[in-house]
Amino acid sequence: MKLYDYGQAPNPRRVRIFLAEKGIDVPKVEIDLSKRAQFEASFQRINPMMRIPVLELDDGTCIAESVAICRYFEVLQPEPPLFGTDAADQALVEMWNRRMELNLYNHISASFRHTSAFFAETVEQVQEWGEQNRRDAAKQFGWLNDVLADREFVAGERFTIADITALCAVDFARVIKLRPGDDQPHLQRWHAAVSARPSAAA
Amino acid sequence: MKLYDYGQAPNPRRVRIFLAEKGIDVPKVEIDLSKRAQFEASFQRINPMMRIPVLELDDGTCIAESVAICRYFEVLQPEPPLFGTDAADQALVEMWNRRMELNLYNHISASFRHTSAFFAETVEQVQEWGEQNRRDAAKQFGWLNDVLADREFVAGERFTIADITALCAVDFARVIKLRPGDDQPHLQRWHAAVSARPSAAA
Repeated sequence: MKLYDYGQAPNPRRVRIFLAEKGIDVPKVEIDLSKRAQFEASFQRINPMMRIPVLELDDGTCIAESVAICRYFEVLQPEPPLFGTDAADQALVEMWNRRMELNLYNHISASFRHTSAFFAETVEQVQEWGEQNRRDAAKQFGWLNDVLADREFVAGERFTIADITALCAVDFARVIKLRPGDDQPHLQRWHAAVSARPSAAA
Repeated sequence: MKLYDYGQAPNPRRVRIFLAEKGIDVPKVEIDLSKRAQFEASFQRINPMMRIPVLELDDGTCIAESVAICRYFEVLQPEPPLFGTDAADQALVEMWNRRMELNLYNHISASFRHTSAFFAETVEQVQEWGEQNRRDAAKQFGWLNDVLADREFVAGERFTIADITALCAVDFARVIKLRPGDDQPHLQRWHAAVSARPSAAA
């Protein structure tokens, strides 16, 4: 088994934090996005979508998409549960994880992809779309601050994959010069708490 | 328990098809998006994101996000498995379902949202972004045709939630005047097969 990884990118970090919380160690293969290694033919056989992370099993099966890789390990090793417990809790964790993707991560990612020189040659950039997403991302920091006003973690009283997605999104927002503000005390409190977990350094 | 639904929208249809495949009947409450009922204060208490579908449990818990609602019923009633079986299969179904969202559904949705008069007053439309997504959606029909060349269903040999997402996406593409072409025989074969299942009419 091996994990195709890249230290600087936010999506592989989601998987690394998940594995650290589970206490699972997986050998890693670095795919250097700064050298566009994901576009090489040898990697396209691993993931035709040319994205990381990808988990390659010993039988050659390749699992792409961060949440799909996390799901694999959740089924193999349910403890600690990071996708929820009973039916309603699993559904609520799925809801909150998706909200962190749709309402936070995607705005940050779209802003970066459509305004950064890094993507000028590989993405058909739409400047206006990038700028709209920059404004949305800033607004959503305020929304997440409100969400966290009455709960310890994103999906409630337990650390879950929704916190991992949110942490990777908030930290990634540095690339668009966005950080939790002093007027967002709940977001700052949560961000300090999840950043202090050993898994955050994975 | 009740499901906040709207007959014409693609996301609630995902949940209705899922429930039909499971043989589960849930009372429905229609939220008329054509009258913008999702923006009313009474519904914002159900889902602050102002989106449907939402499943309200008898204890008042509200589960939003189509896949989260489906997950709830998968845990309650695992048969037939629509999210996969063992760890690797569950991961691959998650991967394919996300690919249907990211690489297909999202392009169709973005194209419609950013070019249709229906959203002119509620979405900050970016015409260029809508047109780029229209081109991407058309290209992705060709990609899905290739994916289906060597398999019966999207995630392999069994009907799963990935087929539901893909079916709702392909049918929704009518709103941007996009249909499977005669040069896409595998997509047409799959589309005819999944459309012939009784659940497709749900």
